[in-house]
Amino acid sequence: METFNCITPVQLRFNDFDTLGHLNNSVYFQLFDLAKSDYFDRVRGEHMPWEHVPVIIANVNCDFLEPTLAGEPVAVRTRLARMGNKSFTLVQQLVDTATGRVKCSCQVVMVYIDLAAGKPAPVPTDWRQAMEAYDGPL
Amino acid sequence: METFNCITPVQLRFNDFDTLGHLNNSVYFQLFDLAKSDYFDRVRGEHMPWEHVPVIIANVNCDFLEPTLAGEPVAVRTRLARMGNKSFTLVQQLVDTATGRVKCSCQVVMVYIDLAAGKPAPVPTDWRQAMEAYDGPL
Amino acid sequence: METFNCITPVQLRFNDFDTLGHLNNSVYFQLFDLAKSDYFDRVRGEHMPWEHVPVIIANVNCDFLEPTLAGEPVAVRTRLARMGNKSFTLVQQLVDTATGRVKCSCQVVMVYIDLAAGKPAPVPTDWRQAMEAYDGPL
Amino acid sequence: METFNCITPVQLRFNDFDTLGHLNNSVYFQLFDLAKSDYFDRVRGEHMPWEHVPVIIANVNCDFLEPTLAGEPVAVRTRLARMGNKSFTLVQQLVDTATGRVKCSCQVVMVYIDLAAGKPAPVPTDWRQAMEAYDGPL
Repeated sequence: METFNCITPVQLRFNDFDTLGHLNNSVYFQLFDLAKSDYFDRVRGEHMPWEHVPVIIANVNCDFLEPTLAGEPVAVRTRLARMGNKSFTLVQQLVDTATGRVKCSCQVVMVYIDLAAGKPAPVPTDWRQAMEAYDGPL
Repeated sequence: METFNCITPVQLRFNDFDTLGHLNNSVYFQLFDLAKSDYFDRVRGEHMPWEHVPVIIANVNCDFLEPTLAGEPVAVRTRLARMGNKSFTLVQQLVDTATGRVKCSCQVVMVYIDLAAGKPAPVPTDWRQAMEAYDGPL
Repeated sequence: METFNCITPVQLRFNDFDTLGHLNNSVYFQLFDLAKSDYFDRVRGEHMPWEHVPVIIANVNCDFLEPTLAGEPVAVRTRLARMGNKSFTLVQQLVDTATGRVKCSCQVVMVYIDLAAGKPAPVPTDWRQAMEAYDGPL
Repeated sequence: METFNCITPVQLRFNDFDTLGHLNNSVYFQLFDLAKSDYFDRVRGEHMPWEHVPVIIANVNCDFLEPTLAGEPVAVRTRLARMGNKSFTLVQQLVDTATGRVKCSCQVVMVYIDLAAGKPAPVPTDWRQAMEAYDGPL
């Protein structure tokens, strides 16, 4: 069973819901990005301005399990799923915090970027250790 | 001096900020809508599903005073500014809660709608009284 | 009667429509911004990257006249309404191109910015003349 | 080599671009949804109102290959990749129409829904045949 140390409450807006009354698919990714920032802040113990976080998204693989409706209290939970050389994988889930039901579950492959050189680089040891320490052994 | 009883903290997302690093103008209106819902819930003492709130926006008049930047803690404050027969006016402001500075100040004219008939109708006495009681005499 | 030389067709997205089936209010401002860029490109006869356009929005005053529904063909029309010293006013309207009906009409006060100094500056003569030439005498 | 019969030009907005100047990840999904609607209209030879299209998204698997920058002319191309019993898979790609470069490539699993019953149902023969006829044998 997976456990998540990082749970980020998210605030939904009227315009996040589509004509069917469902949270629009594109909004999940906005919320996941918000939660990634929270995750990196917690892992590193300090706030990093968004534009300085040296990672990009290479792939998302996302299961939409249930619609999310207006009024449901939701949060995103995030954890490390895989640590590679120049990349790592996060699992992110949108959950109803009242029922515990998972609305959407996503694997995100992120690539570490050397911002000065503008290209992929090995994940630095301090990042690697901080993520593994935060989420425990994989 | 205006006082506001209704202050709604709002959560900003990475994609809310544009290429200049500013909170995009369109997002202020998304946040104001979120805060209107909070305002009506507080005024009426119960949560109304968004699609059942019998009002529409007829006019917005909005001053953009300062840019909002990522990392600034912000909230929307909302109060009644005018009560008419079939319409009323709210003032809504986005403020930096750390500095108190007002980023954006907006007057919103809302029209009460008889949802069954689909057209404007006099603001019912219970709505009128609830708003005036919440925000005090105008 | 106002005439508009600049008419910008706009493409709507499924997620632009809210739970009531209406084009969300915040989206009008996204579309107006798109049309401003088109307007400045036409006035100046060349494309300016968005982040180089030396103007900011100081005020919007917007009447929402009719809801916009999915499937309606829409465009934004834009014209100069007032030329001042450091600012000018545009009128922008979202119209149904099939029926000619105006869904939303907005006055936008824009302030010219000296980007190097980061503060308001007189509208340069070439900008002033280009806008007045494009839209005719006010 | 894959060929695409359905190519949908898409219009980008200033607020679609983030602080790094990149088309925000969430916007790709808004554009893919727009193109799905175009695809279904072409396949069926008639426009279906969005809320009547009897399919939901079960999974997206999306590779972000290159950033999309403001000013680049882009389109989404869509084709059928797999036809199942109650589901099918589309490939959707955002491409730069000037250079032909693929910015983002996505596989989308869609489930056919019996809207009256509110649950998955076999893809009807007319849908199946229309998609296979439009995109040729898989």
